[in-house]
Order: sequence, then C-alpha cells, then structure tokens
Amino acid sequence: MDIAALKRDLDGLKIEDNEKIVQQKSRDFYWYSPVLKRQLDTVSGDLIVSPKNEAEVVRVLAACHRHGVPVTPRGTGTGNYGQAMPLSGGVVLSLADMNEVTSISPGRVVCGPGAIIADIDKATRAHSGQELRLHPSTYNTASIGGFIAGGSGGVGSINFGGLRDFGNVLRLRVVTMEAEPRVLDLTGEDLHKVTHAYGTNGIITEVEMPLTASYDWVDVIVGFDSFMGAARYGNALGCQDGLLTKLITPIAAPVPQNYFKRHQRFFRPGQSICLVMVAPHSLDAFLAFTRREGGEVVFNTAAMTDEEKKGLPPAFELAWNHTTLRALRVDPSITYLQSLYPFPNQLALVEEMDAMFPGEVFSHLEFVRFDGNITCFGLPLVKFTTEERLEEIIRLFQDNGCPIFNPHRYTLEEGGMKQTDQVQLAFKREADPHGLLNPGKMIAWENPEYDYRSGRTYLFKGLEKVG
Amino acid sequence: MDIAALKRDLDGLKIEDNEKIVQQKSRDFYWYSPVLKRQLDTVSGDLIVSPKNEAEVVRVLAACHRHGVPVTPRGTGTGNYGQAMPLSGGVVLSLADMNEVTSISPGRVVCGPGAIIADIDKATRAHSGQELRLHPSTYNTASIGGFIAGGSGGVGSINFGGLRDFGNVLRLRVVTMEAEPRVLDLTGEDLHKVTHAYGTNGIITEVEMPLTASYDWVDVIVGFDSFMGAARYGNALGCQDGLLTKLITPIAAPVPQNYFKRHQRFFRPGQSICLVMVAPHSLDAFLAFTRREGGEVVFNTAAMTDEEKKGLPPAFELAWNHTTLRALRVDPSITYLQSLYPFPNQLALVEEMDAMFPGEVFSHLEFVRFDGNITCFGLPLVKFTTEERLEEIIRLFQDNGCPIFNPHRYTLEEGGMKQTDQVQLAFKREADPHGLLNPGKMIAWENPEYDYRSGRTYLFKGLEKVG
Repeated sequence: MDIAALKRDLDGLKIEDNEKIVQQKSRDFYWYSPVLKRQLDTVSGDLIVSPKNEAEVVRVLAACHRHGVPVTPRGTGTGNYGQAMPLSGGVVLSLADMNEVTSISPGRVVCGPGAIIADIDKATRAHSGQELRLHPSTYNTASIGGFIAGGSGGVGSINFGGLRDFGNVLRLRVVTMEAEPRVLDLTGEDLHKVTHAYGTNGIITEVEMPLTASYDWVDVIVGFDSFMGAARYGNALGCQDGLLTKLITPIAAPVPQNYFKRHQRFFRPGQSICLVMVAPHSLDAFLAFTRREGGEVVFNTAAMTDEEKKGLPPAFELAWNHTTLRALRVDPSITYLQSLYPFPNQLALVEEMDAMFPGEVFSHLEFVRFDGNITCFGLPLVKFTTEERLEEIIRLFQDNGCPIFNPHRYTLEEGGMKQTDQVQLAFKREADPHGLLNPGKMIAWENPEYDYRSGRTYLFKGLEKVG
Repeated sequence: MDIAALKRDLDGLKIEDNEKIVQQKSRDFYWYSPVLKRQLDTVSGDLIVSPKNEAEVVRVLAACHRHGVPVTPRGTGTGNYGQAMPLSGGVVLSLADMNEVTSISPGRVVCGPGAIIADIDKATRAHSGQELRLHPSTYNTASIGGFIAGGSGGVGSINFGGLRDFGNVLRLRVVTMEAEPRVLDLTGEDLHKVTHAYGTNGIITEVEMPLTASYDWVDVIVGFDSFMGAARYGNALGCQDGLLTKLITPIAAPVPQNYFKRHQRFFRPGQSICLVMVAPHSLDAFLAFTRREGGEVVFNTAAMTDEEKKGLPPAFELAWNHTTLRALRVDPSITYLQSLYPFPNQLALVEEMDAMFPGEVFSHLEFVRFDGNITCFGLPLVKFTTEERLEEIIRLFQDNGCPIFNPHRYTLEEGGMKQTDQVQLAFKREADPHGLLNPGKMIAWENPEYDYRSGRTYLFKGLEKVG
C-alpha cells in the first residue's frame, strides 16, 4: 500500500493521519464482546478520509482503487461487531460529514448517510410531525447509514419488523469500488444487496427512509414478581393491536436493580420489569390493560414532573444493547448474546432458557413483529468466564431451538445466518471486483470453501495470530 | 305511548312526523339479508327527533322516560342488521346534526357522534396530516357514532384490529335513560360497556377517536389464476411488517367480473383478485414483493391519469360489505355471511370452505390483525335459495371451525358471540333501568332465560308473527 501516493491523490480532501486519532476512529463498541476485544484490539486503519459529498466519495474510491488500498466505511462507530473496523488497514472512510437532511415529505425522508438518527427525527418532527420507523438504542449517536449497513432493527421493530423487511428502507444511493466508480440508486428487492452488508459491496452516499407519525412517547416501567410474569405481559401487550407502543422490553431481576443506576429507586428487590414506550393517546387504554394483566406501574413519565424526570435516560437507553452497556459499566465481566425465540413457542422457549443458567445468564427480551407475528429476540446478559463456556451456552440455546445471532463474530455470515448471502456476494463481484471494501467481513468472498458447519471461527488473514 | 303529549314536551326541538319520512328514517340496510327483510320490513318509529347538542339529548331522554316512550338512536342508517331500527316504535333519535369536529391534536380527534367519517378525515388531514385508524366501506356516508355503536372494524383493521380492541376508541360521552339523565365520560375498560351495543344502554353524544398518519392511499388490484393464489398472497402481504397497507381483500372469480361493473374491463375471465390499499411510500417495495409472489398487477391508481380513474369508485368501495352491495345491485338473490377463519389455520380453512359450495357460495376475505396475528374474516356471497339452506351453510361453516357472525339476526347476541355480554347488560341495568333504549336488541335484557343453544331464532315481541 503506497499510502503516501494515495494521500497526494487525495489532496484537498479532509484527511486525518494522527496515529492516535486514526486508531480511535478505527474502532467501534466491539469490546462488548471479550472475544472480539481479544481479536480486534490492535486493528487500525492508516488514515481517516472524510468526504463532504458524493463527488468526493467517488474521488476517494477511484484513488484507492488505483492504489489498491482497502476502504472501510464508517458512520459514527456505534456498531458492536467491528462492522466498521478496517481489518486490513487502509482508509477508514468517515461519512459523518455527509449528514444533511435534504428532503422531507409524507412518509419519506432523504438524507446523507452520516446524519445522526436523532437529528433526522428532530428535522422530520419539526417539519411535519413525522419520525423514523426504527432506531437503535444508540439513537442519539448512531448514523442512519451505519444503522442500515450494520444494524438490523431495534426500537420500533414491535410495529415494523426489521430493517431488511420490504419497505423499511426506500432507496439507497451507492457508489461502487471500481476504476471509474458508478453511482447506483437501489430500490425494491435490490436494497437487499447492501442492507446489513457492512459496506462490503458499495458505499452508501444517500438514503431514503420511510417515516411514520411521531409522538411524545411516554416511558412506562411495569413491575412483576417473576420474570415470566413480565415476559407473558410483554407478549400479551405486543398482541394488543389497538395499543400503539414502540418498545416492549422484559428484563429479569436483578438486572434493573444492579445495573440501571439512575432508575434503581423505582424497583423493589427481586422485581422483574417490562420497559414500554407507549403513545400518549394509547396511555389510558394501556394502563387499563396493564391493570387487567396484574402489572404494577412503577414508573410513568406522563405522571412525573420535569424535576422528577431530571437526569433519567429515556427508556430506550435501558433497552436493546444499552441494557448490556449499563451492565458492563457496573460489571466489566458481563457480556451478552443475541437469540431469537421463534413464534409460536416463544414463551415456552423463554421459560426454558431462563431457567437453564441460574446466576450466569440473565434474561432480557425485546418483543418485535417478525413475519407478521409477535415474538421476541433475546439479548441475555452473560456473566463471562471462558470462551469455551460462552460457546457451550450458545450451543445450548441453539440445541433448544433458539437461533443465536452471534455478537462475538466480526463476519457477516457467522454473526447472522451462517450461510452465504448470494445476493450480497453477487453484488460484491459487480461493485467491488478487487475486494477492497471492508476486507475480511464477508467469508463467502474471502474463502468460498469455508465450511460453516466446522464449528471453527473464521479468522481473516492477519487475525489468525489472535484466533 | 302518548306521542302527542311527548311532542308537546319536545316543543322547540327538530321533529319529523311525516309517516313516509319517519318510515324511511327508521330503516337501514337490513335488506341485504332476506331474513331481516322479511322480519323487519314493517318496522317504523313514530317520530324522528334530531337534537342539535347534548342538552337537547338530555331533554329528549328525560321526556321519553317520563312518557315511557322507547328511543332508538340512529346515525346515518348505514347498518346492516337493523341496529337502528325501532322495533317497538317510539322515537328515532337522529344524531346526524351533532356532527361537529371540535378538536384535533396529535393522535386524537374529538367530534359529535353524527359526524360523517369521511368528513372527520377531511378535517384531520387538513389540520395535521392525520386520519382515523378504521372505517367501514360506507366511509362517505356512515357516522362515527353509528360505526362505534353498530360496527366492529373494517378498512384499517389490517393494522389496528377491531373497534373493541383497547385503544381504538379513546373516550365516549354517554347520556343515560333516566328521569334525570346523567352524562358520563367513559375511557379505558369502561368503553366496552357501550361499543357495539347498538345504543341499548346509553346515547353517545361525543366521541374521541385515535388518529394515525394519513396518506394518499394507492389502490392496486392484483390478479391470480386461482382464488387460493389470491388468498395466499393476501396472507403473505399481511405478514410483511414493513409494507404499509390499509386493505387486503381477496375475492374469488367470477365476483369481480360479474359485479364490479366499472372495473370489469381490468379483469381477465376466471381471474380471482386481491384488492389492496397501499401507502405511496410503500409502493415500490409492494410491487417488488408482488412480483416475487407471482401476482399480476391489473390495476394501479398510481400509474393512471385522472381521466383513466374517472368514475371508478375507490378500492374500499369494492370491499367489506360493499362487495355484497355491488353483487346485490346486479343479482337481487345474492346475500352473504360473515365468518372468521381462526389463526393459524386460516388458509387451510379458507381452502376447505371455498371448495364446499360451488356455484352457491363465493369467497371474499378481509385480512386483519386479530389478537396480534394476521388472519382473515370472510364475507362470502351466498346465492340465496331458502332460509333453511342458509342455516345449513352457517352450520357447515361452524362445524368446520369457522365461527359465523350471523348478519341475518337483529340481536346483539345472535349476530355476535352467542352469549350475554355481562358488561353491557350490567350497564343497561344502570343506564336504562326501564329498558327504553333500542328495545328488542339485547336478548339478555328481554329474556334472561333464552337458550342460545336452542337453535331457534330469538323473536322480539311484535315480530313473532313474521318469525
């Protein structure tokens, strides 16, 4: 890699090559995983390039293609699996400056990939009382492009399913990694080529997302004597077709008591909880339903003064992967898993898995729509001991019918479906024929012979030593 | 009944006693049912009273209570089961003039019970891009109060379930039928007392309904070679969590060809169809999904000029009970049933029932959310021969696991759950102790000993002769 020559070609662009800063901007929240922490701790790019617009992206890609320099795109680095970490070094392409919200209309927003999700909502709310359908718990820091390229769903998935479902991304403008980069507008089925592909087969330069009506969501926490009480309540609440919620999150004791520092005073010892975001116009009916189901409302922002709410994070910052973050801040030995409890047996599976690892695994569910049904993902907290034990827990989940989306893997395939996404692979052949985009993340590209059933972790070149 | 004395007491109110007009305003669309047509054809009130506001409602009810005159409330008379027909004569209380939209805010509209549903939407769209969650196919003529008191769901139920689900009605203001009528504001669980109670236990004088984001819905008709193709497609479309639709209606050939006069030219012979209302921002993804599922788009208002669309009714006026209406206009011997195909066996049940009555019953489904799952109601068209045969068809549906909500009955219980609604009954005891509101519609009140398993139709006094 002739980085010096590349730099000359990029003259006039915003470039950062201070080693400390480059290393810092080559990271994400991979350290939630002790496995990834060990594997990826020394990963760093050679320089950060921050284009201001699509023309500059084209220029960077053409130059990097010419010099054979890898390019790893990055939003704000809030991923958890090293999605934006440059395993082969080279250029980290920060899209954070491409953050303009360019157009808002009924049901639609167009913006740059670097726009912070909360900033988009701020603009669409002020414009016409609209907001994005889905967001991660890193709402206030994550970029929309990073969410699309590296995420899968989150807050709002109880209404709209996941990011890869038809209709949850409307259009993506993508630049290819070729001698003369092409600019493509992808819609409909073509979107599957690049959503959740970690930027391995194109650089997103513009996104068009669907909007839904925005509300001043009310945060409510409902307490239960048992975790299964909270889980059954969450499931029943998700099945209430007329109650508009945005988050339904059962969490087992003692997680709330031990790790939700600023909310601790609201929980009785031993109380499991269900976090809920509910629309103000659904609140009356929601409270009636909750009474009927025997839930105890222990926290309700609609009934609190500004003074009482001061300093308390929003409910979604206790949910999804913020649950893990809050636990990690108190107990660094905590890590987590990601599981699916398939419909229609979700409650039986939850009960079974919840009972299997007392004192070691703590249940945390996120109810979602999934293929038209209400079911739940799990993001259980795990008291980490060894990688072998972590693997064993994963195997036990899977053996019991709960697929694991492994957050301790940096490749697309091992984290997700354990198989090649042929659509993504075919598009990479077309859009990145030299394999320069985010190397090492798509096994199907790096090693087509790799056997997913081997049980062995895929190790990208250069990372074998830490394998 | 001393109607003359009552009239004197109502001096100054808007009263109509022209016999022809009173008879006309004592009717609804009961004649969709040959059974109800025979039973109810001679039903008429004695006078129509049209209060302008709640104070006048209170005055009417107090006077009628004093004189022992029955009161049957009426919106615009678009019901199908004689909901608003005064079986014991007396006053027909037309609430049509209480039609003001008084307040609109995010997620909420407050209005009079007589407001026409389309007019409410017109106001809420202009105000803030919002619309009602649910409406019947009689959108342009039905009143909101009549929909709440006599309906159960409709267009939009694919997203929000039914009217009696928690959260689909926010508040009802109700006047009781007592010497000194009380005015009550009902919310939460209390709403179940009066929703779908046909006005038997209180007069609705104000409603507060939830709103959702409004869109310029696109009407699409998708063609299939077989009815089951259309049914499977409708089910799969309903399960697409990211595609925003408002109507998913599979209809078997030759119903579209024979009865949808103005759309006939779009259908090939033998083609079954699925009517869809889809949000504009979901259209691209919807069309991609439809291609993948092998559906043929035969009609798409987004691809038509105003000239091409001229004279064509909206898709929802081909759906729900407008399907029946269009068939009846061509063939007066057509009637219909209302069934549920319970989740998760809906498609197998649909296939079984669709095959059972060739040339006699024509399948028509409406996909909905029901307790958190996607399933379908049926409004099959029936080529009517005898009441005995109609009963037999009903029995065959029920014997095969498809509950029938019998549209050939004028009582609450026989049309719906075949059991006493204890909440409605208890509230009637409280709010209408003399049983003067809409007599004859609540069996539990009229004849507590009635045996629903007898198989015999309940006949209210005075109607026995036509039984």
